[in-house]
Amino acid sequence: MNLLVLCLLTTILNVNNVLGQSYEDLHTPEEPLILKSQGSFYIGGETVQQTRDEMGFFPGNSITVNQMYVRYMEPISTEEKLPIVMVHGAALTGKSWETTPDGRMGWDEYFVRKGHATYVVDQVGRGRSGFNQAKINNVRLKKAEPSELPVAFRFPDEFVRPNFRIGPKPNENFEVTLFPAEYLDELSKQGVPDMRGDVRSVTSNYKALSDLASKLDKALLMGHSQSGTFPMDAALTNSDGIVGIVSVEPGGVRFDLDNEQLKVFTKIPILFIFGDYLDTQTGAGSPNDTPFWQTAYNQSMAFAKTVNENGGNVKMLYLPDTGKGGNSHMLMQDTNNLEIADIIVKWIKENIK
Amino acid sequence: MNLLVLCLLTTILNVNNVLGQSYEDLHTPEEPLILKSQGSFYIGGETVQQTRDEMGFFPGNSITVNQMYVRYMEPISTEEKLPIVMVHGAALTGKSWETTPDGRMGWDEYFVRKGHATYVVDQVGRGRSGFNQAKINNVRLKKAEPSELPVAFRFPDEFVRPNFRIGPKPNENFEVTLFPAEYLDELSKQGVPDMRGDVRSVTSNYKALSDLASKLDKALLMGHSQSGTFPMDAALTNSDGIVGIVSVEPGGVRFDLDNEQLKVFTKIPILFIFGDYLDTQTGAGSPNDTPFWQTAYNQSMAFAKTVNENGGNVKMLYLPDTGKGGNSHMLMQDTNNLEIADIIVKWIKENIK
Repeated sequence: MNLLVLCLLTTILNVNNVLGQSYEDLHTPEEPLILKSQGSFYIGGETVQQTRDEMGFFPGNSITVNQMYVRYMEPISTEEKLPIVMVHGAALTGKSWETTPDGRMGWDEYFVRKGHATYVVDQVGRGRSGFNQAKINNVRLKKAEPSELPVAFRFPDEFVRPNFRIGPKPNENFEVTLFPAEYLDELSKQGVPDMRGDVRSVTSNYKALSDLASKLDKALLMGHSQSGTFPMDAALTNSDGIVGIVSVEPGGVRFDLDNEQLKVFTKIPILFIFGDYLDTQTGAGSPNDTPFWQTAYNQSMAFAKTVNENGGNVKMLYLPDTGKGGNSHMLMQDTNNLEIADIIVKWIKENIK
Repeated sequence: MNLLVLCLLTTILNVNNVLGQSYEDLHTPEEPLILKSQGSFYIGGETVQQTRDEMGFFPGNSITVNQMYVRYMEPISTEEKLPIVMVHGAALTGKSWETTPDGRMGWDEYFVRKGHATYVVDQVGRGRSGFNQAKINNVRLKKAEPSELPVAFRFPDEFVRPNFRIGPKPNENFEVTLFPAEYLDELSKQGVPDMRGDVRSVTSNYKALSDLASKLDKALLMGHSQSGTFPMDAALTNSDGIVGIVSVEPGGVRFDLDNEQLKVFTKIPILFIFGDYLDTQTGAGSPNDTPFWQTAYNQSMAFAKTVNENGGNVKMLYLPDTGKGGNSHMLMQDTNNLEIADIIVKWIKENIK
């Protein structure tokens, strides 16, 4: 077998084979993690009436929906530091912030080690937060039209490289990428169906996040991708307790703000973070010729400008500017993820009282 | 308003109102938790080919399904103790083993404090493990019949009291119940849709659990309710590394064992645990007049007898025998949950080398 064939075969196998190396690849930190407390709880949720058919097959008529799962870790710390609430992106769960695909420490733990309690949520309608199953059962029983089913989407493996900007094409990595690209299979496993089409669950996310910030007294909300603007929407719902926002690679930003809304954002320090290769064509189909993530970046810049002109404090962190090129859309999982976390820790210290 | 009306109103409000007290009710332990490591990973999973339509709307044709999410905590410990893998029941997730509905410590943390590393999973097809969304999209696009949709079921609140044996009827608690019944709303929030009808995901659970035990070298598998027999099925798939089984209130037990299978179970110490009020009529409809959980208990007794007669070591722990009546089906969340955990710790010490 010549080298080219071997190389091609290896590439094909890497793309199609689930490596299953995750357990063996787990890194044990040098220092133990000392927690004052850890655990999980739900925030939000409302009791609704459903038929027995809608709930599957057991008798009854009440059920709780739109609750949000929250897992937390609280450090032992003499110094009072800001709790950080982390929200994941589309077709993913809170797992995004935990152990990286190649087994390194996630931000959920690293920020605790830096003295910040962390609260990692599953978006309402996803993962351990569950979703409203009524329509699926109604359609199955022909009590609703198939077209009423939600679009249940996941990211195909071939779409991930260009969309998450790990490579220019489905089967090709960038020459320099800081994502651990040989563990792309492990990222694929993080995917869960994203059940769209239920507006209620989106507004429930905003409400739950603002409620959580209130209960924590003061909190920093951090969103990523699809949820990049959830912290802003939570602040527009009720800004009590939201004293800082980190928006990691938001998929887009609101720019239809009225004066009242603008005022909310001038009072909250906001940090946007973007990785490299914004000009990648994702293949998702853009409304215009501008690549999707470049558009998102441009919108964030425009948002920052408007808010800053009105007395706000919005900072854009474009990672290639820090001298290290190659960060992906999943930058909390990139090989320099802890260095980026350090930048955030510093920004919090300097900008949030 | 007379006392009876007030009492009735309070009952109705408790049933229908989502208290949302979960955050405020979180208990902070007296001693910090010191971890050698913590994090999460996936086990199992296979890459399958799907159409763009089946995956929602993004371009591509590969996707990973049937992976199992695992969250772990490893204690600092000089003594080597057995890792414990915990699997939850129907329409629930790994949350079952975490903080209780009234904010007390869950078994995930307590066993770590007793020196055992814990591995809490979400069943394949549920929670952070995701599920195969292809059929939902095919039905939505009229490429499959509505009848092909899975039954997506959750437990109605009214069904939970008799089925989880917290009360004799939907709106009534037992006079003595060790479940924190005033927090039943918080238990309702733990519910996620259980997508049945995909046999593949069931066998994937067995495979993933046996793979996990192998990777851990030696492990105790603990199942609950629907997954009460998963540890046995995992052992029949491959018993390497499975050195102990705890079956908490299994919904039923296999009793069609051939000699080869029987031999597997004679080599693994097994502990069954059942709570109180087995004779409660759940309202789910039983195949005969025997209440559902009494049948499950009787089956477990018969299983124990057969395996023990063949040289095995199976113990039945019927909690009312320990002098404390009132344990529910969710006994890992009952007010005496840590006392029950202590019994398990003692059993491990005495029975597993």
